[in-house]
Amino acid sequence: MNRVITITTPHQGLHDITHQIAAVVHEQGRAEGLCTLFVQHTSASLTIQENADPSARSDLERWLNRLVPEGDALYTHTLEGSDDMPAHIKSALTATQLSIPIIEGQLALGSWQGVYLWEHRRRGEKRRIVVHIGS
Amino acid sequence: MNRVITITTPHQGLHDITHQIAAVVHEQGRAEGLCTLFVQHTSASLTIQENADPSARSDLERWLNRLVPEGDALYTHTLEGSDDMPAHIKSALTATQLSIPIIEGQLALGSWQGVYLWEHRRRGEKRRIVVHIGS
Amino acid sequence: MNRVITITTPHQGLHDITHQIAAVVHEQGRAEGLCTLFVQHTSASLTIQENADPSARSDLERWLNRLVPEGDALYTHTLEGSDDMPAHIKSALTATQLSIPIIEGQLALGSWQGVYLWEHRRRGEKRRIVVHIGS
Repeated sequence: MNRVITITTPHQGLHDITHQIAAVVHEQGRAEGLCTLFVQHTSASLTIQENADPSARSDLERWLNRLVPEGDALYTHTLEGSDDMPAHIKSALTATQLSIPIIEGQLALGSWQGVYLWEHRRRGEKRRIVVHIGS
Repeated sequence: MNRVITITTPHQGLHDITHQIAAVVHEQGRAEGLCTLFVQHTSASLTIQENADPSARSDLERWLNRLVPEGDALYTHTLEGSDDMPAHIKSALTATQLSIPIIEGQLALGSWQGVYLWEHRRRGEKRRIVVHIGS
Repeated sequence: MNRVITITTPHQGLHDITHQIAAVVHEQGRAEGLCTLFVQHTSASLTIQENADPSARSDLERWLNRLVPEGDALYTHTLEGSDDMPAHIKSALTATQLSIPIIEGQLALGSWQGVYLWEHRRRGEKRRIVVHIGS
């Protein structure tokens, strides 16, 4: 079973989508299985991160922004904006796809894990995620 | 269902394998499902990247070559060539495995997404990818 | 089918879990399928690496420790120890989840591939991995 969900990100950064994914799993009603998320973009990605202290996520974002800065003289792909090429690189370094087991009808996340859509463009965008639920 | 495909990469860089994967999906004939790619090597990897402007892929490759250069004094694993240890590191930073949902008999890629085999050795090699198609 | 396995890591670094995963696959007895591993933590991760020369793994670990050092002035998330924020970053740069096809009842790994649990905290920890085996 596949469902395409659309998330409008407000700006660059990690946006918690755990509840939206859990809702699809709940609606589908499968007790055991595998839930796969696939982002249909190359300038946004997925990550599982700590859902408790928000400083962990903001440090992570600032660290990656420093590793992959805008305005690097190496870039030749600059027509789509100064945040575009860094977005493609960040996407390659993180995950376009994530699979999470389903146990007793729930995503089998650890106690401190949340699922995040990582927007790499400065402005928010409309992002499409395919949610596949299999056995 | 599993199929092992062999790709001979001509040289280091991102090589588009979207058509080869789509052909396996088409041949298998499943309307809905999940297609998983697994590279049986630790010096080549997989990535989903922009399939339009090739400058995005060449910038990505040059950026990663700069982050993980050959000849770093840190390396002790040098017997297999100066491009071997960087290849293992690049493989760890990108993806050995990718799963892509199948919708209406097609890989559910976004409009601008292509599937790439990323060769990290300078010379081309014969690379084996396991394609698994499940429900 | 899901099984939760617990691995106690002795210290920071890559710990070979190939045999533990192969044992679950063998016990489950499926000839063809897909085995998905999911780490229920955000300070440990998964990687497929060369299982022959251990220098490849130690170089990889030292390289990542240099890229993501402890004590970086950027970090604000420091209450859980100086190795905690680097652990979250390393986790985001590597893999929380891996899927490996099963062929003829075996994990379809390449000749030189091993499956590693990558402990990013200095001290060992008890780590939970969900093993999902699907068709």
